[in-house]
Amino acid sequence: MPFFRRLWCRRLSLIEYSLRFCSMSAKNTSLILHKLRGLMKNSHYVTEELQAYIVPSEDAHQSEYIAPCDCRREFVSGFSGSAGSAVIVQNKAAMWTDGRYFLQAERQMDDNWTLMKHGLPETPTQGDWLSKVLPPSGKVGVDPFLLSAERWKELSKTLESNGHMLVPVAQNLVDIAWNDRPPPPNNPLIVQPLKYTGSTWQDKVRQVRAKMKEKKVGMLVVTALDEIAWLFNLRGSDIAYNPVFFSYAIVKEDMVGLWIDETKLDAAVLHHLNAAQQNGDGSDITVTLYPYDSIKDYISALMEGITGKVWISNKSSYALVSLVPQNNHYGELSPIAEMKSKKNSTEIDCMKRAHVKDAVTLCEYFAWLEKEVPKGNVSEMSAAEKLELIKRQQEDYVSLSFSTISSSGPNGAVIHYRPVPDTNRPLSTDEIYLCDSGAQYRDGTTDVTRTMHFGKPTAFQQECFTRVLQGHIALALVIFPNKTKGHMLDTLARTALWEVGQDYLHGTGHGVGAFLNVHEGPCGISYKSFTDCPLQEGMILSNEPGYYEDGQFGIRIENLFLVKQAETKHNFKNKGFLTFEPLTLVPIQTKMLVPSMLSQKEIDWLNAYHLLCREVVGQELKDQDKQEAYEWMMRETEPLG
Amino acid sequence: MPFFRRLWCRRLSLIEYSLRFCSMSAKNTSLILHKLRGLMKNSHYVTEELQAYIVPSEDAHQSEYIAPCDCRREFVSGFSGSAGSAVIVQNKAAMWTDGRYFLQAERQMDDNWTLMKHGLPETPTQGDWLSKVLPPSGKVGVDPFLLSAERWKELSKTLESNGHMLVPVAQNLVDIAWNDRPPPPNNPLIVQPLKYTGSTWQDKVRQVRAKMKEKKVGMLVVTALDEIAWLFNLRGSDIAYNPVFFSYAIVKEDMVGLWIDETKLDAAVLHHLNAAQQNGDGSDITVTLYPYDSIKDYISALMEGITGKVWISNKSSYALVSLVPQNNHYGELSPIAEMKSKKNSTEIDCMKRAHVKDAVTLCEYFAWLEKEVPKGNVSEMSAAEKLELIKRQQEDYVSLSFSTISSSGPNGAVIHYRPVPDTNRPLSTDEIYLCDSGAQYRDGTTDVTRTMHFGKPTAFQQECFTRVLQGHIALALVIFPNKTKGHMLDTLARTALWEVGQDYLHGTGHGVGAFLNVHEGPCGISYKSFTDCPLQEGMILSNEPGYYEDGQFGIRIENLFLVKQAETKHNFKNKGFLTFEPLTLVPIQTKMLVPSMLSQKEIDWLNAYHLLCREVVGQELKDQDKQEAYEWMMRETEPLG
Repeated sequence: MPFFRRLWCRRLSLIEYSLRFCSMSAKNTSLILHKLRGLMKNSHYVTEELQAYIVPSEDAHQSEYIAPCDCRREFVSGFSGSAGSAVIVQNKAAMWTDGRYFLQAERQMDDNWTLMKHGLPETPTQGDWLSKVLPPSGKVGVDPFLLSAERWKELSKTLESNGHMLVPVAQNLVDIAWNDRPPPPNNPLIVQPLKYTGSTWQDKVRQVRAKMKEKKVGMLVVTALDEIAWLFNLRGSDIAYNPVFFSYAIVKEDMVGLWIDETKLDAAVLHHLNAAQQNGDGSDITVTLYPYDSIKDYISALMEGITGKVWISNKSSYALVSLVPQNNHYGELSPIAEMKSKKNSTEIDCMKRAHVKDAVTLCEYFAWLEKEVPKGNVSEMSAAEKLELIKRQQEDYVSLSFSTISSSGPNGAVIHYRPVPDTNRPLSTDEIYLCDSGAQYRDGTTDVTRTMHFGKPTAFQQECFTRVLQGHIALALVIFPNKTKGHMLDTLARTALWEVGQDYLHGTGHGVGAFLNVHEGPCGISYKSFTDCPLQEGMILSNEPGYYEDGQFGIRIENLFLVKQAETKHNFKNKGFLTFEPLTLVPIQTKMLVPSMLSQKEIDWLNAYHLLCREVVGQELKDQDKQEAYEWMMRETEPLG
Repeated sequence: MPFFRRLWCRRLSLIEYSLRFCSMSAKNTSLILHKLRGLMKNSHYVTEELQAYIVPSEDAHQSEYIAPCDCRREFVSGFSGSAGSAVIVQNKAAMWTDGRYFLQAERQMDDNWTLMKHGLPETPTQGDWLSKVLPPSGKVGVDPFLLSAERWKELSKTLESNGHMLVPVAQNLVDIAWNDRPPPPNNPLIVQPLKYTGSTWQDKVRQVRAKMKEKKVGMLVVTALDEIAWLFNLRGSDIAYNPVFFSYAIVKEDMVGLWIDETKLDAAVLHHLNAAQQNGDGSDITVTLYPYDSIKDYISALMEGITGKVWISNKSSYALVSLVPQNNHYGELSPIAEMKSKKNSTEIDCMKRAHVKDAVTLCEYFAWLEKEVPKGNVSEMSAAEKLELIKRQQEDYVSLSFSTISSSGPNGAVIHYRPVPDTNRPLSTDEIYLCDSGAQYRDGTTDVTRTMHFGKPTAFQQECFTRVLQGHIALALVIFPNKTKGHMLDTLARTALWEVGQDYLHGTGHGVGAFLNVHEGPCGISYKSFTDCPLQEGMILSNEPGYYEDGQFGIRIENLFLVKQAETKHNFKNKGFLTFEPLTLVPIQTKMLVPSMLSQKEIDWLNAYHLLCREVVGQELKDQDKQEAYEWMMRETEPLG
């Protein structure tokens, strides 16, 4: 699933898949805005009157996906897109969002709102706009848990240089006005056993402590939910598609703390966390539990008279980062982000197993579609439902890893499309079908896109598909020095399209978790990001170039790849060289190709890939007794040329 | 000529070509360090005692090449490398330099100095080191003209967060201690006529003013020497190889000022600058002259009660940037940097003409070498001298554009090599010869590298050469969206090498001036730079991948390319697409190739390139009656395949 990097915050939300089409008509926001404007002046809630109030998209953990109780920006504006930041002043309300959402935001927001088209040269930044519309010495309020420290710093600087001030407002004003706000999710946790994780949480804590020692910090505060789930080998279901749970964690030399609602923890989880384990030095590592809401007070109390360094990433909330005295603050990316991204051999084996099962489901699905689509009874929605049913049959299936992008014809050109009744389109032999799907299994997370035609593609469609595949292959084949940054590889996936003046507006690849979030930092392959983490052995990334002809069709070919050591004749400066190994093993439709456009090297890659599908997935299809799917797979993997 | 980006300052110095081998034995620096340490405590020169004094590499214009009077760092340390920053404390002296210079610095510096190997993980930054060795509340002095504002800010922040302070020292302490310091150069200026520039200086001033209006700034301070030379259509010779002159400039709505030693200006130049020209609005543009040294006082006086914004790049010296109140400061890159990089049609025609003349000289040179090398009478130095003599014959020749890199066998692997008596090596039929040369002509600047074998190259050498050429061709052929950043193309030049675990440690391309500096910002093609200016029509860049086998040989293939519009079937999002057109037209030695490794596309490129050499340079060789060179060129451009 492609990944868009928002310009004004760390993570991207894909919540659109679950929310964007809840309402496509404008919500009347007069009452809620009236209430909010009252609260902005109500001394019971604010220490001084606010001239503006910002409602960001994120939750207190700066999550990409958020829970319904955190959809505050949608509640105040009606706009349900994934990216957007609302600002309310006394006589105006404005929404910044990017090109993907201009149309949707216009439809979903009423006249109270002005749409600020982020990315257009004439659109002011939020800071610049506020600086202009505010009265002198304006106070701009925001819930400090919902803004990262780095974003706070940036916005605050702009406001201050124009004589205004960014003010933390402890009580969230939207929550006060939101009568029927859903309660925070409180789902039970499960232990992710060693057979999947390959490393005990105690060993991970030791690794983290070694990293802390290296950086000379005495304490690490962890706020990203997937980092906490990874660290403790626990999974939850507080947020759709993401097996995470609301919590904070702190690691010090002499303690490990987890801030969580204890009702989420059953006896097995408690046992797991308290499992005393004798260290070499004779000490035990156990986890001390604290109430979720007490994190701020805990950190505050610790800061009195603190002498050492405290590691809390600037990507964490301003509310927590600002508790740490500046001279004691170490704000680099959490060490867990990189550790988590480098999968160990157990995680890799498990991810491979999950991908084989997932390939089985797609072979079964496409075989079924090939039979059913010509009958005219399949729609984008019914197809997606069928796929989910098929996936459910697989061992250790947990859920989808995102809402399936099942799109036919012109809907395929809407990159972040999700079928809903209003837009639902029949699948037919006249249109291209783009299917981007993924699942969470206990042993791993998948994400794969295939673009198929069940009739006869046009020559133009074939040419576009071939160029997209050439990009995919160029990236799949590249050998590169250890620690190359992913953005340096992005161009390889584009040159075949550029050659004729085509391109695509999303990045080429994102990191993927191991039974964790389908979009996982800190590595990626995108021209938009230069701060990405260097690529290293064990990382797992998507390779998903595309081409989108607005109003007509969309093409994307996505596999997940493992970064592994390359065998090279030389080894320049002993850097080591890396390459990619495909995890996704699903046939690529050769009917969509213009074989004469492919080089021998490209044909060889495709044939070798299809042979791997036959060998690995073929065996599994036989073992699972999926004869029809097996035959489909064998037909679809006939070698070219 | 390859371009290395120093990590701690804006520009790279190539002064090594003229300086590095002045002395390869250590200089005794005891006396000069003693003197400096005295001055650091002498209240006549410093307002408070300094615990450290920094001696940077740059001049007051943050120039890449510097004049002898500005070689302060070399004077205090003996170390003549291009990159390096010296720090003197009471009981230590330390030099930060990068991997290219570790050996040279160790040889040239005596025991008073500690070498800090920049880029190694264990080496502290200057700020971190100072923070550790200084006594509490240490004062670190530096000449504020020699540090850019951005570097100042960075260093100052580190020092302050450790309780120390960076202090501007008005009088340069090295200059006080340097008895026989050469006087600043004071060479006469020449007017660069319209037939070369294609635009009057008055038109350029109008363009600059339009840009200033767009950014709402009332005043622009220009400190980079090549920007000033470009703006006024003037050239000088204050710095070797760079046709620039010491000066500052200011553009306001109602004035244009040039700060320069007036003795440099003859009647023609004065006439040129004072040429009153009637504008549409009835006003004249004339240049007001001020003494070079009065720039600081002038800006200071203007700042009293200033209300508008002042544009002075953060890449300018802290001395000048710090005069502008923070709220009035606009610190982006000077608008002239980008204007200058986009050559107009006259400049392009002139650059092409210069390249044809330069190609003639290289054909003549290589034809001569082919004949003379087997006789055993040619050395790296005598060859370089011969090349210079040949170049001098061409019309409008001014000087070399850098000291010729004439290197045989193992010397070719020293990327920034320049032959000197100690290292001078005979050219032979047993070794690869790498020649990177360029010249300044009145109509343009050239820079070209060819790698030749006058005997029989080994299979390994041929394979390396072929991979380097494949990288060169991949970049030469790419079509890319308008405004793609150069670093996104760097990988294309490397993948053929990466495939077998090879690489090169320099960037792939740098911008080139039009009868200006051979290394010109703000565009480039390098994995090291993410802040490079987007590529646009009219820019001129080098394409110079390489491969260096330490102790054995070096390979580099360098052409200059013009960025021009590409003809593409589609035009994604109306972005426009660009491609490269070669300016350099010198045969690439096919003897060095393994033709079977080349794809048909690569063979087609090479044959088309050689055909262009025949057509364009062939005609010129005939016109200049260079029969031997013509025959050599025709032999060397025989089509492959």
